[in-house]
Amino acid sequence: MRVLILGGDGYLGWPTAMDFAARGHDVCVVDNYLRRNIARETRSESLLPNPNLHDRTEIFESVSGKKIHVEIGDCADMRFMTRVFQTFQPDTVVHYAEQPSAPYSMIGFDEARKTLNNNLNATFNVVWAVIQHAPDCHIIKLGTMGEYGTPNIDIEEGWLEIEHKGRKDKFLYPRQAGSLYHTTKVLDTDLLWFYVRTYGIRVTDLMQGPVYGLSTTEADQDARLVPNFHYDDIFGTVVNRFMVQAVAGIPLTVYGKGGQTRGYLNLKDTLQCVDLAMDNPVDRGELRILNQFTELFSVNELAERVKRVGDRLGLNVQIEHIANPRKEAEEHYYNAKHHGLLELGLEPHYMADDVLVEMLKKIRPFKDRIDPVKVMPRVRWK
Amino acid sequence: MRVLILGGDGYLGWPTAMDFAARGHDVCVVDNYLRRNIARETRSESLLPNPNLHDRTEIFESVSGKKIHVEIGDCADMRFMTRVFQTFQPDTVVHYAEQPSAPYSMIGFDEARKTLNNNLNATFNVVWAVIQHAPDCHIIKLGTMGEYGTPNIDIEEGWLEIEHKGRKDKFLYPRQAGSLYHTTKVLDTDLLWFYVRTYGIRVTDLMQGPVYGLSTTEADQDARLVPNFHYDDIFGTVVNRFMVQAVAGIPLTVYGKGGQTRGYLNLKDTLQCVDLAMDNPVDRGELRILNQFTELFSVNELAERVKRVGDRLGLNVQIEHIANPRKEAEEHYYNAKHHGLLELGLEPHYMADDVLVEMLKKIRPFKDRIDPVKVMPRVRWK
Repeated sequence: MRVLILGGDGYLGWPTAMDFAARGHDVCVVDNYLRRNIARETRSESLLPNPNLHDRTEIFESVSGKKIHVEIGDCADMRFMTRVFQTFQPDTVVHYAEQPSAPYSMIGFDEARKTLNNNLNATFNVVWAVIQHAPDCHIIKLGTMGEYGTPNIDIEEGWLEIEHKGRKDKFLYPRQAGSLYHTTKVLDTDLLWFYVRTYGIRVTDLMQGPVYGLSTTEADQDARLVPNFHYDDIFGTVVNRFMVQAVAGIPLTVYGKGGQTRGYLNLKDTLQCVDLAMDNPVDRGELRILNQFTELFSVNELAERVKRVGDRLGLNVQIEHIANPRKEAEEHYYNAKHHGLLELGLEPHYMADDVLVEMLKKIRPFKDRIDPVKVMPRVRWK
Repeated sequence: MRVLILGGDGYLGWPTAMDFAARGHDVCVVDNYLRRNIARETRSESLLPNPNLHDRTEIFESVSGKKIHVEIGDCADMRFMTRVFQTFQPDTVVHYAEQPSAPYSMIGFDEARKTLNNNLNATFNVVWAVIQHAPDCHIIKLGTMGEYGTPNIDIEEGWLEIEHKGRKDKFLYPRQAGSLYHTTKVLDTDLLWFYVRTYGIRVTDLMQGPVYGLSTTEADQDARLVPNFHYDDIFGTVVNRFMVQAVAGIPLTVYGKGGQTRGYLNLKDTLQCVDLAMDNPVDRGELRILNQFTELFSVNELAERVKRVGDRLGLNVQIEHIANPRKEAEEHYYNAKHHGLLELGLEPHYMADDVLVEMLKKIRPFKDRIDPVKVMPRVRWK
């Protein structure tokens, strides 16, 4: 299979590229280093050094013997996208090419508008590049569980059958997100659904929860292949941030009451899910939506787990409830379905204590690199 | 009241500006002539001559003694919007500044992308100009009934209370539109709702049906003040197109079976509705959604009405069912609520026969200007 990975330099994109290449697919990664640039601008660099994409692929080739093609450019630029699609002719395109930080999107007008235009135009160009140059190509799009928000009813898998005054119809599950970033993913879903039903393209939209971890089969072969490991308030997901705080002796920063519940998954399971989506493509004119997570936790539960495991390693972990910089419900109903990927064959890596122990041990050697400034919230929702 | 009208050169924008000015408000109209440019490019000019915005306002001032300010510029350009908001300091902003043609948005990539970026960025900039420069300003946004599509359940007024597995919550009514243009309005609604609940701005979102007519109190005072009267397949709404076809002796072009049902309203009622929305503003942090139409008709019913009235004037009107250029249900359930504006005091001008007679009489003197090329569908949905 010829697989194009947009956003191939990202936390998920790079491990996905290595995984697909290791499985024998012909892989091309595309990135414009938007995340690296924002990370530098906002003082949010990752904990471990990450070689650039050309260097990463050379290191990977020397380790694995597998070649990964690299294209540096902007997915929101249609001339660039056209050239990439025409030359690479993908069977599958995995679309991670979005500005992925909720706090960044809430800094102000410029950051919000950059997020809106980058994310919408990248998605729009993927749709049109497929329509024009690869009409049978299967688009695998990374959405987010955050699109659903925290409704007071069960979260179904993308769609909802509604009975109203004795009549029935099926719709996209209602979406209302908690940041401008998450809202751009809602808009992406609206756009994709329009083009699926009107132009008959093939799309799998993965509603993913927060990912944690820095270990994958391929990344573990060489330290220089490690995923981007952000622990800051801008790009760091909560579990990764807690692990770094535990190692650095900084209290775990729980935002508000800590009852915020979400569906989490191990980075290894992201790779499995994207693999499964590719190996089981949808037909023309179908939008398949899968909720991509393996376990539900509240922030308080995560903090308690990290504390328990950290204390066992002698880290003496503290938990601190701080003012919530976000506008979000801190106690709420949350019951989200996630059958689809299990039915396709997902075998979850659950958040067992030994998984957390292994993460802490990997982070410990880099304790001196941890910058305490980066772990406290620097962006407040208005 | 200081009222800013974005898209003030449009079919609705210009009559709205005259109406507000006549009622004693301080009015500023903003436009970048996007619609005029697209009309010329696509050979879709309006039937009657429309002076440019500076000339229109001078003619209006000479007739009424009322001055309307003019700003020519692009609402998707934030530097321009900032200057306009800082200097004019509006109490109310009426946002019509969108590429309004569904067929245009379906021509191809360039037209779709222009529609997406123009509409989303104009809406985004309105939101931010209000947040930054006029936080108490009431945004009146023109949405469309087309956002809802043609669901198999009753269409409520913007919101839907959903009971699911014994639990309840209230959401935006599900939206799935039939063109890329209509989809951009769905995205606008998502964006507005996000910024209302996060930043506490004040928004009324009017879900308007197709408008017909070329007569308003102010426009009737001088032929040069007439609204833009498009009868083509790109900008012409169905009733206006049928009237012109009746006068020209061209069969009325019903797309497909003609069972497509929508909510229609007279241009005079658009003005009333926007007046009522402005005179009854919402509080900070409120998104009010009102369905803006007065009567439901199928396309077949409209064609029959135009034929009946036209025949009475000796026009010998024919009706022709042609292949539907759009992808849409041609027979469907449609029951849409529209209580909100009636409760605010709307007194509808229904589509009585004399209304159609008056329209036909106004169009007749311009029979020789009608270009038959423009009334047939030139854009097909893929």
